[in-house]
Amino acid sequence: MSEISIIGAGGFTGKELLGLLARHPKYKAVHVTSDKLAGKSLSEVFPDLVSPKDLIFKKHEEELPKGSLVVLAVPNDAALELAPKFLDKGHKVIDLSGVYRLHNQEKFETNYKLKHTSFHLTAKAVFGIPEIFRNQLKGADFVSNPGCFSTSVILALYLLGNLRKEIKPRIIADCKSGISGAGGRVEDGGYSFNGVYENFRAYKILSHQHEPEIQEYCFAGSGLSEPEILFVPHLLPVYRGILSTIYLEANSENLPFLDTLIENSKLEPFIRIRKTPEEIDLAKVQHTNFLDISLRQRGKNITIVSALDNLMKGAASQALQNINLMLNESETLGLLS
Amino acid sequence: MSEISIIGAGGFTGKELLGLLARHPKYKAVHVTSDKLAGKSLSEVFPDLVSPKDLIFKKHEEELPKGSLVVLAVPNDAALELAPKFLDKGHKVIDLSGVYRLHNQEKFETNYKLKHTSFHLTAKAVFGIPEIFRNQLKGADFVSNPGCFSTSVILALYLLGNLRKEIKPRIIADCKSGISGAGGRVEDGGYSFNGVYENFRAYKILSHQHEPEIQEYCFAGSGLSEPEILFVPHLLPVYRGILSTIYLEANSENLPFLDTLIENSKLEPFIRIRKTPEEIDLAKVQHTNFLDISLRQRGKNITIVSALDNLMKGAASQALQNINLMLNESETLGLLS
Amino acid sequence: MSEISIIGAGGFTGKELLGLLARHPKYKAVHVTSDKLAGKSLSEVFPDLVSPKDLIFKKHEEELPKGSLVVLAVPNDAALELAPKFLDKGHKVIDLSGVYRLHNQEKFETNYKLKHTSFHLTAKAVFGIPEIFRNQLKGADFVSNPGCFSTSVILALYLLGNLRKEIKPRIIADCKSGISGAGGRVEDGGYSFNGVYENFRAYKILSHQHEPEIQEYCFAGSGLSEPEILFVPHLLPVYRGILSTIYLEANSENLPFLDTLIENSKLEPFIRIRKTPEEIDLAKVQHTNFLDISLRQRGKNITIVSALDNLMKGAASQALQNINLMLNESETLGLLS
Amino acid sequence: MSEISIIGAGGFTGKELLGLLARHPKYKAVHVTSDKLAGKSLSEVFPDLVSPKDLIFKKHEEELPKGSLVVLAVPNDAALELAPKFLDKGHKVIDLSGVYRLHNQEKFETNYKLKHTSFHLTAKAVFGIPEIFRNQLKGADFVSNPGCFSTSVILALYLLGNLRKEIKPRIIADCKSGISGAGGRVEDGGYSFNGVYENFRAYKILSHQHEPEIQEYCFAGSGLSEPEILFVPHLLPVYRGILSTIYLEANSENLPFLDTLIENSKLEPFIRIRKTPEEIDLAKVQHTNFLDISLRQRGKNITIVSALDNLMKGAASQALQNINLMLNESETLGLLS
Repeated sequence: MSEISIIGAGGFTGKELLGLLARHPKYKAVHVTSDKLAGKSLSEVFPDLVSPKDLIFKKHEEELPKGSLVVLAVPNDAALELAPKFLDKGHKVIDLSGVYRLHNQEKFETNYKLKHTSFHLTAKAVFGIPEIFRNQLKGADFVSNPGCFSTSVILALYLLGNLRKEIKPRIIADCKSGISGAGGRVEDGGYSFNGVYENFRAYKILSHQHEPEIQEYCFAGSGLSEPEILFVPHLLPVYRGILSTIYLEANSENLPFLDTLIENSKLEPFIRIRKTPEEIDLAKVQHTNFLDISLRQRGKNITIVSALDNLMKGAASQALQNINLMLNESETLGLLS
Repeated sequence: MSEISIIGAGGFTGKELLGLLARHPKYKAVHVTSDKLAGKSLSEVFPDLVSPKDLIFKKHEEELPKGSLVVLAVPNDAALELAPKFLDKGHKVIDLSGVYRLHNQEKFETNYKLKHTSFHLTAKAVFGIPEIFRNQLKGADFVSNPGCFSTSVILALYLLGNLRKEIKPRIIADCKSGISGAGGRVEDGGYSFNGVYENFRAYKILSHQHEPEIQEYCFAGSGLSEPEILFVPHLLPVYRGILSTIYLEANSENLPFLDTLIENSKLEPFIRIRKTPEEIDLAKVQHTNFLDISLRQRGKNITIVSALDNLMKGAASQALQNINLMLNESETLGLLS
Repeated sequence: MSEISIIGAGGFTGKELLGLLARHPKYKAVHVTSDKLAGKSLSEVFPDLVSPKDLIFKKHEEELPKGSLVVLAVPNDAALELAPKFLDKGHKVIDLSGVYRLHNQEKFETNYKLKHTSFHLTAKAVFGIPEIFRNQLKGADFVSNPGCFSTSVILALYLLGNLRKEIKPRIIADCKSGISGAGGRVEDGGYSFNGVYENFRAYKILSHQHEPEIQEYCFAGSGLSEPEILFVPHLLPVYRGILSTIYLEANSENLPFLDTLIENSKLEPFIRIRKTPEEIDLAKVQHTNFLDISLRQRGKNITIVSALDNLMKGAASQALQNINLMLNESETLGLLS
Repeated sequence: MSEISIIGAGGFTGKELLGLLARHPKYKAVHVTSDKLAGKSLSEVFPDLVSPKDLIFKKHEEELPKGSLVVLAVPNDAALELAPKFLDKGHKVIDLSGVYRLHNQEKFETNYKLKHTSFHLTAKAVFGIPEIFRNQLKGADFVSNPGCFSTSVILALYLLGNLRKEIKPRIIADCKSGISGAGGRVEDGGYSFNGVYENFRAYKILSHQHEPEIQEYCFAGSGLSEPEILFVPHLLPVYRGILSTIYLEANSENLPFLDTLIENSKLEPFIRIRKTPEEIDLAKVQHTNFLDISLRQRGKNITIVSALDNLMKGAASQALQNINLMLNESETLGLLS
């Protein structure tokens, strides 16, 4: 049994990861923290998440179990402070915040409106999309888990492989997320029932902090320069799930986009290419680590639809996929049931 | 009191229009038909829609009250058959189906998968967007009311006026609709609670029958050729409302798109230009005849967001706006309370 | 045109009433207040509620238009302070709070946890259920509008008339309300999307402040003592509507409960008795002033189901029904379209 | 690994059970049937339910794997036909239908409107509520799994133990269920999005087939005669979960109802007694095998609130709890993560 410490376990993602660990054959959560919930038990905070042995929330500052792998599920500023500390003490760390994803410090600071105090660590962090960085993730000590929107867009593009050379470098990503993916807590800006139910809207239009992350990684390994990304997130009146509609223009007609997706995904345990984009919906990916992708082609226009569960492949289960690799276990362990 | 006959009054739009007429100062519904509901009373079929004087549903074939204006709210094939008949008898007719909107018969037949049997009437039908065809609608005998998605996209583009000359003729319309706008009845293809609730998906991707309608009218009056439209509708788990996110590329930066929208809409009673597109949501337009529009500009990229109530400005209340014009009444009569 | 001032017009009920007044043939809102929204316009605060002439929110303390009828839509403590002031100045007043409903001061103070500072006014207030107090409401100067839950239960019992003598004085009212009826604002106790969506719970079990109100009025005019009421409210994941399931035990079998309901309601414009209680649902009463009632009888057991729109017959439209009577207009004016 | 065959695996409950088995340490599904889905694979039918080894749906009539335990998840009439067949062939059988629950044939036939063709088997079937019949369930060959509403009401009463002697034998169960518990498929009676969303209603008032089941078992082991049950189910606009509000009248005041519940449940792994009934909601039990119970006492009145997940403790996970006992495994195996 490998031991896992979750720092900031009181949020949506922490809860999801605790659920996954409760049924994982080789890992167990041994330490959970939340400055706000310190002293309460897991079963009190998450009554629908109960395992035989209960845990008590501790403060972030308390000593971690030696040798435990650390999951950082804290806000950006806390991750800046805590990641170096835990790495120094020899813990393997996977960070779910956005602070070690971008390799351009200026872009980071502009987008996150935050001064970076440990930028040198970004160079050491492996970006946690196994379909792209599987080899570097194996045995890695420090992983930066990607954003939920980003995962849905980056992989839909990355898996086009060499065909990326045949698309115009101006990509539109019109993304729709349930409230748990949109940061959705009432404390954080009023996702009241009233404001969300029987409603729909766009937010942070062309100004969301995930845009540069998509830009940096979607053409990874292609030798191409970063494309222009036009990213518009929307808030759905659902709890979980992201569906992204991505608009590309190809240089010529009749290129084999769908076949290429199929070919490049055929060994991927968590990528499912659907025959038509109309088959894709949130229900098919909720509570799973799957990313479903398909596309429609008309002349030079390619419309890709991709969907994932923002709390799973967009956060907790992708983190577990990464942890499996960091600990040299089978990548799918605990993720296919 | 002008008299209104509604043919096919048992659907979503019929109900909505009956609600509007019940409180209209100068019109009243005098005749409602539905082959399926014939013999039932309005208050039985729509218990939440009651006016002092009840009506009984009749068969489509029954004689209409002489001189009554006819609203056709029937499927496409029925509209092909009924519109010529009612026009011949001297009724003013407003048709809510899609069959008299497109002036290219081949495009119509391909898109609607339907042989057109009275195409000559299309030339006589005024397309019912008052913001574009106000003068032709005044006193008109035959009006073709536009589609709900189409209205949200066409007007957002039309109101850019001359600036349309400065945008590339490849326009992406990523539209999201509640189930009443998506044809949403359980008989018509399974909008079960289960399939829609906590779910989201795209449908008829690049193949929806409203696409050519957007194409024909969005550049109306500009002297430009029809642009390429990439239209992707999505199904929201809400009852009413459409929000469209429209992606344009301009020929140059810093063109005054928002100011132009404001200028071109300043006399329009039902167009509201918002300062930022993040302000726009379904809740602000539900149960109203308003179309809200705004945009974000970044370099040459323009992202427009527009929203309307698909049953109102997208159907019934726009029909009433048109009826007001057809009957030479004030355009806003019965629509601002 | 009679003029209406709405004190506390920024809430759910204020908005609803403004919508009703906008289309009322004889009244108009001329003055709206909200300490929080002072300075903003109606169309800014309620974009989906627009009438030709806009109004600006004022502070509560500002002078009211002379002779205007005052609707008090403020919290209980504010109503205690404001009602005497406005009555003194000669305004007709209808109060939507709970402070002038109960004629037992001790019961009031225990249930509302509030010292009553103008209890003598309760004796002057007519309780605003027209089906019970129609004669007293005609021309009345001061009306206390009932609670939403209360209306749904009191009328279902009151309309049993003399048969109330045949029921055991222990009545169970299991009521379910959408969030707008449950006080539903995020400020007032956390109706976050997360806490309500895909969820359901009971609250204030046997301790809701409407219980004594039901108790005082449900046997009105029968000569019977007040019965014991067991009132349990529940929170539905819907926006508007209350459905109450009421359990009675009769003294003997085969009493004509349904026929009595029908007989006692036959002249009531806003009461609809349904043949079976399974026909009753929220959709049939939403956005209307109707109260739907039916029941199932088995042996001595009577199960009544009643439903209303908490913002309408449970608040704003019942207020308008009362205002019509206070101003000696037809009771249904502005309420049947 | 024990092998499980699921007959009728294509429904809500079958899917849920497949999910549980996929992560169970000692059982695996080896055979799934559905006459309608025969030939399709599990991953095609339930894309969000994938385990390493996929299965193909077979016809009901096909030979079962020898020695496999059979879960019958078919309609009542099919269960009447199939249970005897599988028992004859020596399979252990757990039946999820309602046909082997009631020991009074006439009551069964009246309530289910169905002639019973194998009533002798009812005597052999253990009623599958482990908290009541644990000893009989150990090693049992034939188990009749209870209804979802029934479980929520029966246990809330059963766990009162001897205090049941102190309550009047007239019990009101006002129950509210999400659509998956209400039989909720569009084929089975129209749970369209439109009819359920933003809506609420009661159904089968005092005439639901679970009423006699509650009646037969709620006083089990007390030596008391069966009480009168007044059962009214309601349909919530949620997917999963049942909350029951149960009204009792005690013979005297101040009896220790809550303490008795606590005492009688203290060794039960899946019963959680909450301090106050306001703490209980659907969210705390969804996706778990827990039944949460609490109550409010006022004078002689006791209001119990209980909640469970209708697909879990109300169906699939309670079946698994029973299977654990039938196969002499630990009762909680596979149910606490």
